[in-house]
Amino acid sequence: MLKVDERLDNKAWDGFKGGDWQTEIDVRDFIQNNFTQYNGDQSFLEGPTEATTKLNDQLVDLKLKERAAGGVLEADTKIVSTITSHKPGYLDKSLEKIVGIQTDKPMKKALMPFGGIRMAKDALEAYGLKLDPEVEYIFTELSKTHNQGVFDAYNADIRRARHNKIITGLPDAYGRGRIVADFPRVALYGIDRLIAAKIEDLNNYGDGEMTDDVIRMREEISDQIKALKDMKKMAESYGYDISQPAQNAQEAIQWLYFGYLAAIKQQNGAAMSIGRIDAFIDIYIERDLERGVLTEKEAQELIDQFTMKLRMVTFARTPKYNSLFSGNPIWATLSLAGMGLDGRHHVTKTAFRFLNTLHNMGAAPEPNITLLWSENLPETFKKYAASVSIDSSTIQYENDDLMVKTWGTDYYGIACCVSAQPIKDGVQFFGARANLAKTVLYAINGGKDELTKQQVGPKYEPITSEYIDYDEFMAKFDDMLEWVADVYVNALNAIHYMHDKYYYESAQLALKDTRLDRTFATGISGLSVAADSISAIKYGHVKVIRDEDGMAVDFVAENDFPRYGNNDDRVDDIAKFLVKDLYTKMNKHHLYRGAKLSTSVLTITSNVVYGKNTGSTPNGRKAGEPFAPGANPAYGADTSGALASLLSVAKIPYRYATDGISYTFAVTPQTLGHDEAAKENTLVNMISGYMKNDGHHLNINVFNRDTLLDAQAHPEKYPTLTIRVSGYCVYFADLTKEQQDDVIARTFHSSL
Amino acid sequence: MLKVDERLDNKAWDGFKGGDWQTEIDVRDFIQNNFTQYNGDQSFLEGPTEATTKLNDQLVDLKLKERAAGGVLEADTKIVSTITSHKPGYLDKSLEKIVGIQTDKPMKKALMPFGGIRMAKDALEAYGLKLDPEVEYIFTELSKTHNQGVFDAYNADIRRARHNKIITGLPDAYGRGRIVADFPRVALYGIDRLIAAKIEDLNNYGDGEMTDDVIRMREEISDQIKALKDMKKMAESYGYDISQPAQNAQEAIQWLYFGYLAAIKQQNGAAMSIGRIDAFIDIYIERDLERGVLTEKEAQELIDQFTMKLRMVTFARTPKYNSLFSGNPIWATLSLAGMGLDGRHHVTKTAFRFLNTLHNMGAAPEPNITLLWSENLPETFKKYAASVSIDSSTIQYENDDLMVKTWGTDYYGIACCVSAQPIKDGVQFFGARANLAKTVLYAINGGKDELTKQQVGPKYEPITSEYIDYDEFMAKFDDMLEWVADVYVNALNAIHYMHDKYYYESAQLALKDTRLDRTFATGISGLSVAADSISAIKYGHVKVIRDEDGMAVDFVAENDFPRYGNNDDRVDDIAKFLVKDLYTKMNKHHLYRGAKLSTSVLTITSNVVYGKNTGSTPNGRKAGEPFAPGANPAYGADTSGALASLLSVAKIPYRYATDGISYTFAVTPQTLGHDEAAKENTLVNMISGYMKNDGHHLNINVFNRDTLLDAQAHPEKYPTLTIRVSGYCVYFADLTKEQQDDVIARTFHSSL
Repeated sequence: MLKVDERLDNKAWDGFKGGDWQTEIDVRDFIQNNFTQYNGDQSFLEGPTEATTKLNDQLVDLKLKERAAGGVLEADTKIVSTITSHKPGYLDKSLEKIVGIQTDKPMKKALMPFGGIRMAKDALEAYGLKLDPEVEYIFTELSKTHNQGVFDAYNADIRRARHNKIITGLPDAYGRGRIVADFPRVALYGIDRLIAAKIEDLNNYGDGEMTDDVIRMREEISDQIKALKDMKKMAESYGYDISQPAQNAQEAIQWLYFGYLAAIKQQNGAAMSIGRIDAFIDIYIERDLERGVLTEKEAQELIDQFTMKLRMVTFARTPKYNSLFSGNPIWATLSLAGMGLDGRHHVTKTAFRFLNTLHNMGAAPEPNITLLWSENLPETFKKYAASVSIDSSTIQYENDDLMVKTWGTDYYGIACCVSAQPIKDGVQFFGARANLAKTVLYAINGGKDELTKQQVGPKYEPITSEYIDYDEFMAKFDDMLEWVADVYVNALNAIHYMHDKYYYESAQLALKDTRLDRTFATGISGLSVAADSISAIKYGHVKVIRDEDGMAVDFVAENDFPRYGNNDDRVDDIAKFLVKDLYTKMNKHHLYRGAKLSTSVLTITSNVVYGKNTGSTPNGRKAGEPFAPGANPAYGADTSGALASLLSVAKIPYRYATDGISYTFAVTPQTLGHDEAAKENTLVNMISGYMKNDGHHLNINVFNRDTLLDAQAHPEKYPTLTIRVSGYCVYFADLTKEQQDDVIARTFHSSL
Repeated sequence: MLKVDERLDNKAWDGFKGGDWQTEIDVRDFIQNNFTQYNGDQSFLEGPTEATTKLNDQLVDLKLKERAAGGVLEADTKIVSTITSHKPGYLDKSLEKIVGIQTDKPMKKALMPFGGIRMAKDALEAYGLKLDPEVEYIFTELSKTHNQGVFDAYNADIRRARHNKIITGLPDAYGRGRIVADFPRVALYGIDRLIAAKIEDLNNYGDGEMTDDVIRMREEISDQIKALKDMKKMAESYGYDISQPAQNAQEAIQWLYFGYLAAIKQQNGAAMSIGRIDAFIDIYIERDLERGVLTEKEAQELIDQFTMKLRMVTFARTPKYNSLFSGNPIWATLSLAGMGLDGRHHVTKTAFRFLNTLHNMGAAPEPNITLLWSENLPETFKKYAASVSIDSSTIQYENDDLMVKTWGTDYYGIACCVSAQPIKDGVQFFGARANLAKTVLYAINGGKDELTKQQVGPKYEPITSEYIDYDEFMAKFDDMLEWVADVYVNALNAIHYMHDKYYYESAQLALKDTRLDRTFATGISGLSVAADSISAIKYGHVKVIRDEDGMAVDFVAENDFPRYGNNDDRVDDIAKFLVKDLYTKMNKHHLYRGAKLSTSVLTITSNVVYGKNTGSTPNGRKAGEPFAPGANPAYGADTSGALASLLSVAKIPYRYATDGISYTFAVTPQTLGHDEAAKENTLVNMISGYMKNDGHHLNINVFNRDTLLDAQAHPEKYPTLTIRVSGYCVYFADLTKEQQDDVIARTFHSSL
């Protein structure tokens, strides 16, 4: 039973403009009522404090030592990580303005067995450490892990498809991640108010009829309440009482960071994004500046040191995992700027301050800085961002106008690489991707895998003619894609059921609404290879080379054919069709918890591995050669200049691929112009053009191939050279040789 | 994909008549094809071997020591019990023909935290022991228990109803029990064949579409397969390879006992019944006797020692639990005899042998011997059973004709007290009971509890008149019962969801079919009190005595009124109505996993506690006085002789109360006749008459009140005096003083 709301007030809120946010949990309403736009340039920004620099030097030193040690300096082998499992830890307590780390020592990796005990064990063993046998016993005999649950449910069809990598990268042995919690809630309301709201939700969930769904959700709310209580305990161990709202900027950042810290202590998710906090934090900083209790220097110090904490997040992963996701990214994705539904842009001084951390502490892969781009952002900010991109290639740009329109909210953040998510009440069931290039080959080979020679897909009739007939191929491809959609979606159904059962994200979900909109995030790899292959079949008169078993192992296109990436509808329409067709076929199926289907065209760095696991394709790509990342045109295919390439990618329909369409773009500095101002201008115009054409996402890399070649040959000269790969940043030095070669092989646009 | 079945054969099956059981897992078919009826008398039976007597003396001694020590001699505080957690243990290895105990020492209680860590902790602390803190940490912070899950899901309504004991005895902190596994499968097929069959089931469960139900069941089958593998390991530790079928009688008993042992190592269920194994075991004994490799003495020794193992089963319980279920019963219920669907009775020599264990080793509460009574059982067997009842009051009788007709199978067993369950493919979700007497009071008091004064039920208008009007009362009762049905069924929905989630019975369910028929077993307490109270309201002109708050706290019936237990339809129809009405109201609701609703009228010994928690009732029963157990007439109400009492109870409709209608009957020896033959005759006729009138269940106690009074005064004279209480046997000495008084207060029929 609800009571008539009293308009709550709190001393901590003095000076804020009131609104619904006082009676409802509604961070967006608070932001809209209180944020201060900034239309000026970067001249107000301050450099780092001495404390920041000292801490940062210490951290960079630790990271280099870790790299030298092969990836791990220290790791827990016995203490299972929970929100409250560890005593406080510090880099240097006396210097830290924002405190809290995952374990009790910086860079010491936590032990996180809930996703899968074998993964935890293998990760330790890869670095010469040994899992405590009692922990292994507990998670084998007394308690099940997510991984075990999933494999208990998988059927033979799924296992085969997974083993042969036509579906791949599935989060079935680690945390799925991709939930962007509303961390500012901790700061704005304090934990006690959040607990009270969740208790109210619990009391009002279900009409008494205990169906499975109601029971599950009631248990989850109870788990969320426990997580909130644990957050309080954890903060207490650092000397902070977060039961009440934050009183100033330092507390606001510290409170919301404690929320995030709880999340990364509980979950080793594939992506642990921080969300959209720039305008929120800015409100507290503005109030403190106005009250005269904070200087700009101190404000920047808080942002720097908070950012440093995000740079410190790390998980123990297996070498196999690292081959998919190089450089151990954790996607502490930070979404900046964007527009409000009321037409006001959300650029604040704090958005500038976050970009300024790249100058103050040097470039680094985390947090994964994502600029929510709108035509209506102030030019000063656009240019400043462009200048940072030109300096350090650390920013990705996403189309805010497109996302606001599609998602119906301006309070969304980017989860993981490029996926929008309403922060108040949206979550995503992350599901990696299906290999469309391989699907083309399965259609040709009657469901047999071209590398393992196993019968993986249904035993449909293979194509046996010397030249591939387009109509025959398309009918067979249709059948095979139907099967891929089925087996893929159902693998994900099992995964997310078990993740909720064995590795529920109670800390993150405690900081979101109870009633959620869920998206079921599938993904596509090999889009450009598949599109070009089908184009080759249609236009190129493709001859099949078969081995002694009759398996198609190579292809020769006797005629030229259009390739995706040149703004040619003949093939771009094929790429569009592939996205819509797979979506439509997947959407036939049961989707766990009534989630809404979405898909993505993004591949992280795993385009290299996917290529390795895929035979020669009709577009002329040889067996084992990398795919292009994400929605990129195939390497060397986009020969018509940057603009044509951008226009092709922008055609991929975001309405089906709401999980994101990632384009990783490289341009040489010279192409952009001769001086800084010209370069910034060109870059801004290029991004702007892409977005106006409904392009969704752009990784901007500005450098020459020669720089990368030099960095490969002399890594000691470029210890922190940072580049953007598909959906995240990485130190170039942390990539494998193979991946470095891949990046070097990509198209570097040198003409517009 | 199935293959065309080859007709399997196995050396272990030499001499058996073949049938479908060779290609399908079908123990019933094996029994029907191979069992040997026995129509003779008990003269063939043998006394105990020296080894049996030595072992039994040791066991009785241990049990008396345990009683003297207050209930626990030794208990695990650190090793969590699983199928494979313990090294082998023995009473005396050199003497034991059948081996295997729950832990590594006889009577040492296992640590079973999965149902609830607090229960496990409290049970230990009640006996001065301390739970290992790490185990507590594991089951609090790393892994959830069934108990925690249930309380996470309960709503306030359920908590209040539970706290005020209008619903009560819920299995929300311990194992629900009540699953009768098909233990003979282990002996007939060996574990490897059972694993193969479950793998086949797994491969054929679901059409690929991974709905929640399909995922859950697939995971459960995987868990079952793990349990089967663990059974093999556990048996290996005792030196037996149970991967293949049993070769002889000793192995057959040992194999099936290993199945049971796995169950009790994994589960501390409220009831861990052994099922219906008499004819099955007999087939192996007959073959060995025929082969000349076994003598009758040796056959009896196997049965005695196996029975002894069932007598040794024990769980650590809290004192609160024991106040509900005195004497620490575990309901190793053993179902004997019964009829086949083909009209052949199932009485074998082994049914006699099991009864003979009571002579060879003295009376004992376990196993809970249940005779499946049919008119068509041979007279020799009926009389022998009657003689055992007269000697030791250890047998309960259930109506096989009624149960076969209702359940549609002759291969069912009794779970817990009195509940029939198809052994091949039936399971029961056990759910304790709703207090109907209290519901009467809630209807009068507008949903307020008469003892706690809390508003528990809905705030309906109370009855405010001095005299209760029947029609007004019935309308209010109808509303209140609707609420009880709702809150009760939904508490059970939460309980069984969580039990499946956190304490799944993989060992028992591995030994049943994969596709199950589930019953949702609710229960009624206070039936006779409620029926008599409503009769009083209808016929007795009941005046209400109210306290200063206006709560009805006592009642005076100014006229006489008919009471249930005298074969008077005016009130017996009310009792019938109550059962049907509650059933109908409960059946409106969602029932977990599509289970079929059933209810029961049985109360274990908890009739005393239920009475204690219920205020004065309109039938004249004073606050705190015990209810009659099960479906028994209220104490002193049945004044028209045994026959009239039996006829009243027999009217309760089994079609609604398929979970059982328990009548605990006491008759003085003199009433039955003057010599043994006459007594046996009278008892047989009495049971027969009850069953012919569709009576379901009868606990037969034959003794005088004086014997009990003497046993209460001089317990040392009667260390193993065994009586039947509602649905099980108990050593009289193990009852609390209150419960002893209750038993003494019951009706002892001294006229027919």
